[in-house]
Amino acid sequence: MLKLDSHSAGRHFLHIPGPSPVPARVLRAISYQTIDHRGPEFGQLGLAILENIKKIFKTKSPVIIYPSSGTGAWEGALVNTLSPGDLVLMYETGQFATLWKKLADRLGLKTEFIGKPGAEGWRYGVDAAKIEERLKADTAHEIKAVCVVHNETSTGVTSNIKAVRQAMDAAKHPALLLVDTISGLGSADYCHDDWGVDVTISGSQKGLMLPPGIGFNALSTKAIEASKTAKLPKAFWAWDEILESNKTGYWPTTPSTNLMYGLHEAMEMILAEGLDHVFARHQRLAKACRAAVEAWGLEIQCQDPAVYSPVLTGVVTPDGVDADQLRKLILERYNLSLGTGLGKVKGRMFRIGHLGDCNELSLLAALSGCEMGMKAFGIKLKGSGVVAAQEVLQD
Amino acid sequence: MLKLDSHSAGRHFLHIPGPSPVPARVLRAISYQTIDHRGPEFGQLGLAILENIKKIFKTKSPVIIYPSSGTGAWEGALVNTLSPGDLVLMYETGQFATLWKKLADRLGLKTEFIGKPGAEGWRYGVDAAKIEERLKADTAHEIKAVCVVHNETSTGVTSNIKAVRQAMDAAKHPALLLVDTISGLGSADYCHDDWGVDVTISGSQKGLMLPPGIGFNALSTKAIEASKTAKLPKAFWAWDEILESNKTGYWPTTPSTNLMYGLHEAMEMILAEGLDHVFARHQRLAKACRAAVEAWGLEIQCQDPAVYSPVLTGVVTPDGVDADQLRKLILERYNLSLGTGLGKVKGRMFRIGHLGDCNELSLLAALSGCEMGMKAFGIKLKGSGVVAAQEVLQD
Amino acid sequence: MLKLDSHSAGRHFLHIPGPSPVPARVLRAISYQTIDHRGPEFGQLGLAILENIKKIFKTKSPVIIYPSSGTGAWEGALVNTLSPGDLVLMYETGQFATLWKKLADRLGLKTEFIGKPGAEGWRYGVDAAKIEERLKADTAHEIKAVCVVHNETSTGVTSNIKAVRQAMDAAKHPALLLVDTISGLGSADYCHDDWGVDVTISGSQKGLMLPPGIGFNALSTKAIEASKTAKLPKAFWAWDEILESNKTGYWPTTPSTNLMYGLHEAMEMILAEGLDHVFARHQRLAKACRAAVEAWGLEIQCQDPAVYSPVLTGVVTPDGVDADQLRKLILERYNLSLGTGLGKVKGRMFRIGHLGDCNELSLLAALSGCEMGMKAFGIKLKGSGVVAAQEVLQD
Amino acid sequence: MLKLDSHSAGRHFLHIPGPSPVPARVLRAISYQTIDHRGPEFGQLGLAILENIKKIFKTKSPVIIYPSSGTGAWEGALVNTLSPGDLVLMYETGQFATLWKKLADRLGLKTEFIGKPGAEGWRYGVDAAKIEERLKADTAHEIKAVCVVHNETSTGVTSNIKAVRQAMDAAKHPALLLVDTISGLGSADYCHDDWGVDVTISGSQKGLMLPPGIGFNALSTKAIEASKTAKLPKAFWAWDEILESNKTGYWPTTPSTNLMYGLHEAMEMILAEGLDHVFARHQRLAKACRAAVEAWGLEIQCQDPAVYSPVLTGVVTPDGVDADQLRKLILERYNLSLGTGLGKVKGRMFRIGHLGDCNELSLLAALSGCEMGMKAFGIKLKGSGVVAAQEVLQD
Repeated sequence: MLKLDSHSAGRHFLHIPGPSPVPARVLRAISYQTIDHRGPEFGQLGLAILENIKKIFKTKSPVIIYPSSGTGAWEGALVNTLSPGDLVLMYETGQFATLWKKLADRLGLKTEFIGKPGAEGWRYGVDAAKIEERLKADTAHEIKAVCVVHNETSTGVTSNIKAVRQAMDAAKHPALLLVDTISGLGSADYCHDDWGVDVTISGSQKGLMLPPGIGFNALSTKAIEASKTAKLPKAFWAWDEILESNKTGYWPTTPSTNLMYGLHEAMEMILAEGLDHVFARHQRLAKACRAAVEAWGLEIQCQDPAVYSPVLTGVVTPDGVDADQLRKLILERYNLSLGTGLGKVKGRMFRIGHLGDCNELSLLAALSGCEMGMKAFGIKLKGSGVVAAQEVLQD
Repeated sequence: MLKLDSHSAGRHFLHIPGPSPVPARVLRAISYQTIDHRGPEFGQLGLAILENIKKIFKTKSPVIIYPSSGTGAWEGALVNTLSPGDLVLMYETGQFATLWKKLADRLGLKTEFIGKPGAEGWRYGVDAAKIEERLKADTAHEIKAVCVVHNETSTGVTSNIKAVRQAMDAAKHPALLLVDTISGLGSADYCHDDWGVDVTISGSQKGLMLPPGIGFNALSTKAIEASKTAKLPKAFWAWDEILESNKTGYWPTTPSTNLMYGLHEAMEMILAEGLDHVFARHQRLAKACRAAVEAWGLEIQCQDPAVYSPVLTGVVTPDGVDADQLRKLILERYNLSLGTGLGKVKGRMFRIGHLGDCNELSLLAALSGCEMGMKAFGIKLKGSGVVAAQEVLQD
Repeated sequence: MLKLDSHSAGRHFLHIPGPSPVPARVLRAISYQTIDHRGPEFGQLGLAILENIKKIFKTKSPVIIYPSSGTGAWEGALVNTLSPGDLVLMYETGQFATLWKKLADRLGLKTEFIGKPGAEGWRYGVDAAKIEERLKADTAHEIKAVCVVHNETSTGVTSNIKAVRQAMDAAKHPALLLVDTISGLGSADYCHDDWGVDVTISGSQKGLMLPPGIGFNALSTKAIEASKTAKLPKAFWAWDEILESNKTGYWPTTPSTNLMYGLHEAMEMILAEGLDHVFARHQRLAKACRAAVEAWGLEIQCQDPAVYSPVLTGVVTPDGVDADQLRKLILERYNLSLGTGLGKVKGRMFRIGHLGDCNELSLLAALSGCEMGMKAFGIKLKGSGVVAAQEVLQD
Repeated sequence: MLKLDSHSAGRHFLHIPGPSPVPARVLRAISYQTIDHRGPEFGQLGLAILENIKKIFKTKSPVIIYPSSGTGAWEGALVNTLSPGDLVLMYETGQFATLWKKLADRLGLKTEFIGKPGAEGWRYGVDAAKIEERLKADTAHEIKAVCVVHNETSTGVTSNIKAVRQAMDAAKHPALLLVDTISGLGSADYCHDDWGVDVTISGSQKGLMLPPGIGFNALSTKAIEASKTAKLPKAFWAWDEILESNKTGYWPTTPSTNLMYGLHEAMEMILAEGLDHVFARHQRLAKACRAAVEAWGLEIQCQDPAVYSPVLTGVVTPDGVDADQLRKLILERYNLSLGTGLGKVKGRMFRIGHLGDCNELSLLAALSGCEMGMKAFGIKLKGSGVVAAQEVLQD
């Protein structure tokens, strides 16, 4: 019999870029007894959640909450706003941009995938000028939506969404702006309204410090309008019935009650700490993490300091080192989980998550584990990353 | 600030027909720390779950596990097997059959809804002869799927699926058989393979004693074949990538890790008790509940004793009694949640759930609450339902 | 391997007169991570607890909190206030009064045990007149303390403590008044200050809805004075160091941190509900329970309606019925735990607890279980106890 | 209202020498619903615990389990084996030896406190030769017991108990050997039987990874014999009734049920890991911790490498540094709790706990916090302790 609850001594250090460690307080909240999702208590919970989640997205528009993963929320954004055969401009920043594109293809959309070519493209953020150029060329307005990833989880690059909006405005193009910030929300500053995003897609298991299982679509008036005429078939993902039901704090289908308890609790924690404080904490930890990578003499996957991610740092392993074998050694020897390299960078990098419920000492623990693991693997390091990170965190 | 965790003294009695009460053991399991869904430990968990879930559905074929509600699993079953405009024969047994039909309509399928006409149709199970007749008439085999609800949660009727299969065979019709047993699985006996079902749809929050948030599609070889040519757009719900990933115990997108912990634990409990024992317990409690309703001199919604549900009992309230006002009184006064009347029977019945983690005394508590509540509401009862139920449970 | 966490389906009904069922909210609180009991956070917790516990005892004097059972708190009360060979007047109301006497004997005190003679004495409360008479006869003031049990858990009798105080005053006797309300606190009204009690002894696992493991001594100025000269050896139980440490919210030795979390939470719940409401709820449930016993045609152990306990009801089983065999059948068949008969009434009664986190429906469930169990055991009952109880609770 | 469950982001690092961090698995165990401590399920639990606890103490004799702190267990050991005025030889190794002596004095024993004089005595272990010498001088056998502390929590010194036994044997003295290993049990190797200890005192909140609230007395046949004639008053602590009750898995008074759940779970964990493995892990972490202190250029409190504690390391702060102000800074800035200096070394040292549920990375996190904190406090460190510790842990 599988014994789930049996581990070697000492706590596990979960430093993948999501799911992030869930605070005990949130784990306790999701263990509340399930209640009637049609009863009066649930309605109160629903209204409180629907109100708070707007603050997290910095929006005054409604936010759709799906009992699904982030992938489901990608699908929700597309099927509500687009029609079969619509052309969608997507920007390749890494594996998740690529997966989103594949999903769009499967749904019957026509996708155009732009970006810096080759593996190099995975080391930079979205180049808004490229989008502006392409949109200006689209005088017939065939492009119905521009899709970009805010925080590319596979590489550690946080693109400038405001610049994308400005590019679209400069091009005077009516396409919708759809942004994936699945791994950015609650960790990197994000302004749905101010940045003029039409649909923001997110999930629960990253900056919100929840287990996976909840997906989000933050909407704009323009997106809601579009959903009324969009022709892709939609039922489970359809916004209309959800928006109607949400007015009184309920959902048309059964919500994920226990994860909703956790969502409520996690938002209480985040809003009590203050979003600005939360973002500053992520920036500080990220800076310390990068100092460690530099001290080791290794390369950071992201090549543009302007778009370093506050959520995770991609570390390029030296030639000849299988990053996944290294991760395996670190997991087995030091009880530390790191993120794998995905797609084009498979085996050539690992990712250190420093998001959500992290603090100085848990990051230093993770960096210590990386450092000892790399040495044990035979990698020559230039210096001590932990010491370098301490210097950043000292101040 | 909303205080979720604050209730009046004494435990709440949750007797809606799902979500059912989640055992403390399962609540503790879902509060395990979230782990890396790509790590070795998750793979072991995944394989164990995928093996056990087959036993629950009584199938040797794969079972798809979605991080979604039951509604999502309805959608998954349809989009994987059907093409736009396909004709689907659906059978009206109540509100959930009706909702499934609406969902099929939204997805661009052509639905034909048969059944006993009017509100009366909601008091009986599926008439397999009607299906046989219709299929025989469909000599061109335009009907691509037959969709029926096994346990109609809105009424308390458990249709005979084996008979539907026999009717289809008798008609020599190639349509797929799609069955919703969202509220039946783990409570009412169900044999995916023996009954020749092509896709069985279910969810977590009923007989499996979990919170909502997980949906299932149990497959047949024929259904998998159909999925290869079906033309409805599908991505999140697509079986192909899931089946591939499942081979090693993983999922292509992020699974609902913490609910998966609970699923594993709940299946351990059910399989340790033994499915036959679980089903017999449900039958015994259901019989006691019906004895109570009869003792009260009230009508059971289901009019055919052959298809009484072991999961819930629908109680028709006397003329002039607003069933929802009654439920409100019972909730406020006795801390007991009952199911509302839905759709055609809104306000005219309430539903007593006796599924999942229930036992003799919790049922008697619920019946006591109903009884006191009805008296307090001014309803004249013929006799004591609790005493009648005790007599059944005495043996 | 023992599997603690494995039970048959449905929840257990714990209706012994303590430990009482612990609310999930309190169970979650005791599962908070343990903290430094010398750190600043603990000090805040300590001060909050020490303040609230006074409200529960209705006192302005300090309350000592021991990491121990109620038995330890008995010992604490005696060793702090008395000297070897001191004469103590104790009143036999049942098994717990008897055990307290034995403990006093072991500690080297001289005890005098008065009360109604024989088994009959276990069916009535303290007769204050008897105490007054004895104290008046003690003109040399040899008696140093009067010890009485407020709520005798073994019988279901709640003695009148105010009357005892009045008797002592009438006798103008300087003895200390020591009262055990281990099973009464938080369930039956209790006024440490107004009733002039010198030391009140209590525990956590009854009306306070906590697991066992915490004991209390509520003090009076007179008791504190006595502790300065009392000669029984004391160290762990010594009040002096505790009182000193408590000033800043700490304890001289390691407190039971996690039970303290629970204590804090449980008091928040009780004070939010309001003590008066809590006591009224207990009285209502107790009345319903007694109505059931009467309807069954059985005898209540307590023979004086003026001192019926709101905490538990002792039910005398008919001649020839082994109450413990009956309890065994009820436990195995209906998942219901009842209290055993103790000492002089071993095998001749069982006890139904209706304290702490109970409500109408859980009591009716327990009564249903008793009723079915007694019938299954072959006991002829006069009528339905559940129906009788419902009538009381209906109003 | 005090919000217990509200902390800044990221987990707290609890590195005091007890209470040690409680594993989530144990926290979940203590949150099981409380059961009838007289019911059949409890008896099974009791027997399992009583059997396993012997393995932890490495004894075949009974182990008494008290619902109390370690201080209570000190008292239990003395009152069961000694009579008023008995002479007890105690050895000063630090604050806890001193506190035990004070407790013995309060109980009416005559204590003789030997050891190296002054503050210097707190930097070494028990000198068995001193004990031998004193016992040889006691030709009248006035000394009834020798009391030593195995792991002195206030200093980080683990005395050689086997040597003490040999000294007593060499002196051919009949005194009982009483040993406190409150903070050693489950962390440092301990052999109750092989070392010929008569009563071993311990507690739950250290190597056993439980919250505080349980105390232990492991007995010898000689100790049990002594308890039959010892004259100190005893009731709550009396072994006789407990030993009798324990035969069937129960206790004479109410045990601390929920902590017992945790005790059962924690012992399952320790025995599954294997005691030898557990001890080796503690030694490895302790060695790394000392390497860090040496790298910092600071002094370890313990001056004898033969008795370095595997449980904690005492770090002497440089002259002019108030160790408690430093601890405060570290707690507030880095969410790390360290142990305070006690008694003679108040303000002049801090203690790093590396016991129980610790592992390499949590220790490195703690050392990082110490290091950054000391720098921030203005202390000049010779080198990086984290790097030095990594080198030890690398192998």
